[in-house]
Amino acid sequence: MTNYALAIHGGAGTILKSLMTPEKENQYRQGLKDAIEAGEAILKNKGTALDAVEAAVRSLENNPLFNAGRGAVFTNDGKNELDASIMRGDTLQAGAVAGVRNIKNPVSLARAIMEKSEHVLMCGEGAATFARSIDAEFADDAYFFVQARYDQLQEAKKTDRVFLDHSGEASAEDNKKKFGTVGAVALDVHGNIAAATSTGGMTNKKFGRAGDSPIIGAGTYANNKTCAVSCTGHGEFFIRSVVAYDISCLMEYKGLSLKDACDEVVHKKLVKIGGEGGLVALDANGNIELPFNSEGMYRASVKQGEEIATAIYRD
Amino acid sequence: MTNYALAIHGGAGTILKSLMTPEKENQYRQGLKDAIEAGEAILKNKGTALDAVEAAVRSLENNPLFNAGRGAVFTNDGKNELDASIMRGDTLQAGAVAGVRNIKNPVSLARAIMEKSEHVLMCGEGAATFARSIDAEFADDAYFFVQARYDQLQEAKKTDRVFLDHSGEASAEDNKKKFGTVGAVALDVHGNIAAATSTGGMTNKKFGRAGDSPIIGAGTYANNKTCAVSCTGHGEFFIRSVVAYDISCLMEYKGLSLKDACDEVVHKKLVKIGGEGGLVALDANGNIELPFNSEGMYRASVKQGEEIATAIYRD
Repeated sequence: MTNYALAIHGGAGTILKSLMTPEKENQYRQGLKDAIEAGEAILKNKGTALDAVEAAVRSLENNPLFNAGRGAVFTNDGKNELDASIMRGDTLQAGAVAGVRNIKNPVSLARAIMEKSEHVLMCGEGAATFARSIDAEFADDAYFFVQARYDQLQEAKKTDRVFLDHSGEASAEDNKKKFGTVGAVALDVHGNIAAATSTGGMTNKKFGRAGDSPIIGAGTYANNKTCAVSCTGHGEFFIRSVVAYDISCLMEYKGLSLKDACDEVVHKKLVKIGGEGGLVALDANGNIELPFNSEGMYRASVKQGEEIATAIYRD
Repeated sequence: MTNYALAIHGGAGTILKSLMTPEKENQYRQGLKDAIEAGEAILKNKGTALDAVEAAVRSLENNPLFNAGRGAVFTNDGKNELDASIMRGDTLQAGAVAGVRNIKNPVSLARAIMEKSEHVLMCGEGAATFARSIDAEFADDAYFFVQARYDQLQEAKKTDRVFLDHSGEASAEDNKKKFGTVGAVALDVHGNIAAATSTGGMTNKKFGRAGDSPIIGAGTYANNKTCAVSCTGHGEFFIRSVVAYDISCLMEYKGLSLKDACDEVVHKKLVKIGGEGGLVALDANGNIELPFNSEGMYRASVKQGEEIATAIYRD
């Protein structure tokens, strides 16, 4: 039996201790702890990495503090549009959904697309039609409504600005503007790994923009031979850099360790093109990496027999 | 000055000579020739690889024989939903659109997203809103209507089947069912490369399904350091395999030649998981590869100072 391992993130960006109250920080740390406990409970009972990443991401989706599921930010026309993806490292099966509305847990819809359809990626209204056909759980607009998110939209509209999840400029102004994608990677006792990612996108976004979260290879990737990766950051740069699969290829083709592959992509290649963000990654040996090139990243991890560690800022 | 090179595809699948009339074959070859001439005219005049792949793909989109733009297949609810992407190898900039309707040339919308927005990927109605904001060319449903495509939908609906672009089973029944994605890769005299892909998806598709065509890294990728790639095939397998970027990584990290990288991905890795299809690829030295693991692939290529070569079946 392999020793299990689990890591999650709740978004990266300009997260400064000077702008955080102790109460708020405690809430974030508790949210991270709840999510990792949800995943660990499954791994502890010899459950699958796939179940664990889904459970951890569902917990973060259900928590209005994080920009995914409930608590998703608002688009320019006052809607919540959700993206998610999931991949299993043993079979390389994957599922993803982009721009769907009123789905309570987009990560579970992504999993259903993987398991109950012949497809990998579904978009918009069509994805909602599929969700109805499999009795996925819907929630009304009121469920997703979080006053702080709505206030952010009004503020963004005043200046006609788009707040990226991780925009340093926007975030430096106001601590409330640091939201982000959520995600998880896990290794189970059977030796299999998996990854999942979910997001509400960016405040005031227009034009059906999608970032890297629903893109297999960019925001999410898992392969037992190499690693499981879930990203958070300025999605456009992560798509162009095919970030998640790049880490896998650096390990498989160039022989890099998980740590060296993460360093290369997050601290060199992404920095070079201005791609701010981070990711959580692990390999089938239980090595965990939580690299980010932004001011901070909400993150937590646990290994079998060890304590849960949560962190927000740079060391 | 570099010698220019250009390669295009018009889809892969079960394309058998025994099911093709000489007239039909001539029409396809002429369509391929028209497209490659449109691209070559630009390269000959010292134009950019980016302009060349856009021109070649626009020509294929405007030709009702190919499943992209005009001639796109019908979704289950009788609509044409279009996907496209484009990437330039010098700057690694990229643009993509998924599930958009009534756009005359989706590849040009993908390029506009790359050049006139801060985003890489836009989906559905939102993408159409962006298209209107930049005065992109729209066309009404009648423009896209091709009787043969509509008949295919009725036939697919009778049996509640989804025809993948490249489904061997469906295609073997009737030659008319061999459609596919279109794409182009080019090297210009300045030494830069680019790639573009466009598709109408699959007949009778539901649920807002998207394949690999709008996914940077899967259906399209370009990097001056390695290669430009445009894919056609069973999109779900191409997404899970991150096909286009995998070829790039095998070259960059493992030192494989373009040919060996293409062989590894198309003839080994994709075959192993049942991923039928092919791709066109070239590198900055002007090497061209046109590999496919299906019965055939509509394809054409030209190198500076050489004749245009068109082909459909296996050698």
